Amino acid sequence: MKSRAAIALEAGKPLVLTEIDVQGPQAGEVLVKIVATSVCHTDAYTLSGKDPEGLFPVVLGHEGAGIVMEVGAGVTSLQPGDHVIPLYTAECGQCKFCLSGKTNLCGSVRATQGRGLMPDGTSRFSLDGKMLHHYMGTSTFSEYTVLPEVSLAKVSKEAPLDKICLLGCGVTTGIGAVLNTAKVQAGDTVAVFGLGAIGLAVIQGAVMAKAGRIIAIDINPDKFELARKFGATDFVNPKDHSGSIQEVIVDMTDGGVDYSFECIGNVNVMRSALECCHKGWGESIIIGVAGAGEEIATRPFQLVTGRVWKGSAFGGVKGRSQLPGYVDQYMRGELNIDDFITHDMKFEQINEAFDLLDAGQSIRTVLHF
Amino acid sequence: MKSRAAIALEAGKPLVLTEIDVQGPQAGEVLVKIVATSVCHTDAYTLSGKDPEGLFPVVLGHEGAGIVMEVGAGVTSLQPGDHVIPLYTAECGQCKFCLSGKTNLCGSVRATQGRGLMPDGTSRFSLDGKMLHHYMGTSTFSEYTVLPEVSLAKVSKEAPLDKICLLGCGVTTGIGAVLNTAKVQAGDTVAVFGLGAIGLAVIQGAVMAKAGRIIAIDINPDKFELARKFGATDFVNPKDHSGSIQEVIVDMTDGGVDYSFECIGNVNVMRSALECCHKGWGESIIIGVAGAGEEIATRPFQLVTGRVWKGSAFGGVKGRSQLPGYVDQYMRGELNIDDFITHDMKFEQINEAFDLLDAGQSIRTVLHF
Repeated sequence: MKSRAAIALEAGKPLVLTEIDVQGPQAGEVLVKIVATSVCHTDAYTLSGKDPEGLFPVVLGHEGAGIVMEVGAGVTSLQPGDHVIPLYTAECGQCKFCLSGKTNLCGSVRATQGRGLMPDGTSRFSLDGKMLHHYMGTSTFSEYTVLPEVSLAKVSKEAPLDKICLLGCGVTTGIGAVLNTAKVQAGDTVAVFGLGAIGLAVIQGAVMAKAGRIIAIDINPDKFELARKFGATDFVNPKDHSGSIQEVIVDMTDGGVDYSFECIGNVNVMRSALECCHKGWGESIIIGVAGAGEEIATRPFQLVTGRVWKGSAFGGVKGRSQLPGYVDQYMRGELNIDDFITHDMKFEQINEAFDLLDAGQSIRTVLHF
Repeated sequence: MKSRAAIALEAGKPLVLTEIDVQGPQAGEVLVKIVATSVCHTDAYTLSGKDPEGLFPVVLGHEGAGIVMEVGAGVTSLQPGDHVIPLYTAECGQCKFCLSGKTNLCGSVRATQGRGLMPDGTSRFSLDGKMLHHYMGTSTFSEYTVLPEVSLAKVSKEAPLDKICLLGCGVTTGIGAVLNTAKVQAGDTVAVFGLGAIGLAVIQGAVMAKAGRIIAIDINPDKFELARKFGATDFVNPKDHSGSIQEVIVDMTDGGVDYSFECIGNVNVMRSALECCHKGWGESIIIGVAGAGEEIATRPFQLVTGRVWKGSAFGGVKGRSQLPGYVDQYMRGELNIDDFITHDMKFEQINEAFDLLDAGQSIRTVLHF
């Protein structure tokens, strides 16, 4: 079938809006009509060409929501008409990782997903007979996309797809990092580095966890207003201080924070985030994705004296098990998604959405097919 | 009073055996007659001059056991005749750290301890009228030493002081890192880097935790025999392999270990120890003390994909609360200390003990006063 899509033909160039060919779902696969998608920094990172694992040509996009159109042989958990959120972190429930009870990093489709292919090692996308790669197992920048059954969370049909699409990455990642990875407790002091969508979601998660103090840190003070709306209590612009930001945070918290979150992908900030943690128990969680080959560093004394360095992928959330609950929380008004959406556009304006994100002028732009 | 002591007059020189002057205990302090002490790498590190916080002249020594001789004003928890183990990690029970329930890093005497002084900012040691520094709040290389009350664990009088002195550092640190910091569970796979006293104690702790597989790693294969005696199940000499040691461990464990412990103080090994952990849940605990200014590094992706980087000081053990129990476990035969003791010597042979440790020919030499 034909599908509207925005494809990345090569690194560093704008997406090309065109019609591509989408093959129907094979065994264990599902054809989804994407209703809304947004643009995340990871899409921009891959498009830039800086991602050494980036493959071209490719159909990018991993933050979307849609409706099941057709299921392949053997698919039992989904049927046409179901509302779904694509998952770049699958959940098969049967692999070593899923069965461990310790992680959301399912291993079922990882190998082929990393090579931009479906689990059988082929692609469902082509343009003029030439194969296009899948991306993160989701490829939401095509109106019709094909995913493995294990990469789809079935959610309430009541929920607006053009809002809950944000649960496909940023919002879930930030909230989950607080609740699942850090397990912030009532009264804890939290520092959030970087006030994009992830950072704002961390703030929301910290409010949900009843954190006592939520310190929002960004070099762009324009971000503070929205951070305050989400519940941040303190605001720090590193540019306003001559000392290291970790010293500033340690001083203002009588020894450091209980938890810190790096939501940028800057390895120097990751160090600051660790070192602003309280001796004896402070934990720092890396959420941001650093550039290829970049490394984090610190003196081991920081860890020997009780700080803990962790990371979080998709907020530790098991998509198929937990995302339906997040959607229900949104529908009950317990979870704020709407305030992340600074712009709504037609899908065809997708390159504009990338520009806004690059310029720091949007949190999330939702693109409507 | 006069006391036999081995003093470090300057960095890089052998200790000088002499008689020093020891002042009686002030308020909140306790005079202890050390019966036995051993030598740990940290003493050697400071003596070498590589420790930027090392102070000279100084009475080194932090792994000892002795008998209370006299208590200063206000001391209520100890009296003459009590058997004690000096603690370089005090436990006051009242500071922010002790009350947190999250760490053993008591803050009560830390500032002055770091400056080689008693809490009132002065020293109890002198030689020919010239002040000698205290060391780690313990200074067990003097037959008579003075410590804060909060830096002494009262233990059973039945226990042989020339064995349980090892609980003052190495044995406790290793076992505690497994049981308190890592919380290894039955069946877990554990990797231990470095088979000195700490590494062997980690192996013992892993056996106590019923670990399923305990991989002992050292570039000196002479260490494997004792590691086997303590309960290690697998033995790896990195020199036998051309690939990185983390790859070797990942391959032999189908994806990595559940917990790893760095017991050397080598920042490159710390990285290997982290990276040999299983994706999704593996945790690496740094116990070794790195050289001044040295840094650990890794790609943040290692953490984002679920590995956790931690450290442990004195095994997370609260000395006054928990060390008496460790002594009782030794007396019941549940804790092996004797096999750590490869040499017994007179206190006057202390420089020989340092030489054996440097040469990797001893695990622990117990020095008898």
